[in-house]
Amino acid sequence: MSFLDRVRACAVFTPSAYRPFRVDGVDVGLVAHDFADVLRRQRDVFVVDDEGVSLSSAVPADPDSRSEAVARALRPLADAGMLRGWRDEPYEVAARPGQPVLFTMERAAIPRFGIIAAGIHVNGFVRGGDGAIHMWIGRRALDKANSPGKLDQLVGGGKPAGASVRETLLKESEEEADLPEPVAGRAKPAGAVTYRTERSEGLRRDVLYVFDLELPEGLVPRNTDGEISEFYLWPLQRVLEAVRDGDEFKFNCALVIIDFLIRHGHIGPDEPDYLDLVHGLRSLALAEGALR
Amino acid sequence: MSFLDRVRACAVFTPSAYRPFRVDGVDVGLVAHDFADVLRRQRDVFVVDDEGVSLSSAVPADPDSRSEAVARALRPLADAGMLRGWRDEPYEVAARPGQPVLFTMERAAIPRFGIIAAGIHVNGFVRGGDGAIHMWIGRRALDKANSPGKLDQLVGGGKPAGASVRETLLKESEEEADLPEPVAGRAKPAGAVTYRTERSEGLRRDVLYVFDLELPEGLVPRNTDGEISEFYLWPLQRVLEAVRDGDEFKFNCALVIIDFLIRHGHIGPDEPDYLDLVHGLRSLALAEGALR
Repeated sequence: MSFLDRVRACAVFTPSAYRPFRVDGVDVGLVAHDFADVLRRQRDVFVVDDEGVSLSSAVPADPDSRSEAVARALRPLADAGMLRGWRDEPYEVAARPGQPVLFTMERAAIPRFGIIAAGIHVNGFVRGGDGAIHMWIGRRALDKANSPGKLDQLVGGGKPAGASVRETLLKESEEEADLPEPVAGRAKPAGAVTYRTERSEGLRRDVLYVFDLELPEGLVPRNTDGEISEFYLWPLQRVLEAVRDGDEFKFNCALVIIDFLIRHGHIGPDEPDYLDLVHGLRSLALAEGALR
Repeated sequence: MSFLDRVRACAVFTPSAYRPFRVDGVDVGLVAHDFADVLRRQRDVFVVDDEGVSLSSAVPADPDSRSEAVARALRPLADAGMLRGWRDEPYEVAARPGQPVLFTMERAAIPRFGIIAAGIHVNGFVRGGDGAIHMWIGRRALDKANSPGKLDQLVGGGKPAGASVRETLLKESEEEADLPEPVAGRAKPAGAVTYRTERSEGLRRDVLYVFDLELPEGLVPRNTDGEISEFYLWPLQRVLEAVRDGDEFKFNCALVIIDFLIRHGHIGPDEPDYLDLVHGLRSLALAEGALR
């Protein structure tokens, strides 16, 4: 096993298995062919043909009407077991984060439509008197829908519709680690990790805004929402080895840690895969990007 | 002007203007059509056709013979003014940094062949008692071949053939800023910035290994090789504004500073171009990458 294996595990994608999901003529997602067939049953909301999936012209084009119509179409699919993990958490649908929000869609459906989701991940760490870093690591609760029992960052979570990146950071820090705003607010943005990969829940196309949060020695995080069963404070070398040699970290948390290790100099240019790691940590093609 | 303008200035590329340079059937570079016509004159070394440029089968396939033959072909072009800036500095020719070295080529010719070059750039900074960062900025000498008079990092330079990344770091730190090994050796690797862009010297396809070096207050760098005329110690906000609003920084140094500002939280997710910056700082397609 290697760091690069972790990155590769977040780059699993078979283009021919998907057709585009288009709204107002713009590609906003990718729908697997078998789920496209499921969507054919909801022909008052979705138009499915060989070219792709789009919204029916019968749905009024304003965001609220679209959100309502899509929820109305998807809820029965969830009830019939064809869409797992419904949580009543609307996410934004846009060509990409920061672009105009076209409507909102239940979180559980986002990967089924291959829509880009945004989230925040916080590397929480303590610097000892000798400068050596210990990192806070969470163990995900066994009843989590995704990656139960896996290792995780101190704080991580998806950005719900209407919340800013900073609001998501503060909310998740409070819920997941009981960090009050004056502490969580000191988290420093440090870039973004992006990827596109097939998972059991669908096609994940994610933008993770990464934060570093240095915590004082003695501050012990405490989970308040039941999503983390335990926190550990590990020497950074143990974290590095767990990411590189084992399979205990949640797939995307491993990437966030590799990014931390690169930014802080614990993986350097003599690592043979260095350039592939640096590039692989931002492998989501932002098709509407100004740079394309 | 904006940070994104700086990134865009390092992403100028017209694919149709180039044909591949192939060695042993592998693409290692891109040659502009007009320079390909120049290479036709050296038919004992180069084979030029519509498909691309390659080495003649008359050149023995070992690295030394190839290096010698290519130098023999290129030197007259330099003498005739068709290849500017000859420096007698061999660079490695490989599909990408870290891959087997096929032969070496004079540095001045590297962008004419569109071969990927590696370099090191060092962000030298001082942290005041209040935690505020001041950054050392160099002014490039007026007689430099590239970007004379422009602002630069504390230390930056290309990786010559046979030198490791770390050896290049130590050598350039001594020459450009008079930093002894015990000081320069504390520089921490922090990732890589990559780009592909057309410049007057040819097609630059560069991998810049980025280092952060925190210097003690009172240590004043001193240039010893004549490449930097002056050093300034600027508050980070002034550096940020100079990169964003002005045009004084050398094209690729601006990218290295934007990367520093992102990694250290001085450009955050509320910057509208954040994701384009994060991706644009690593825009060189590593065609032979394991991730493609």
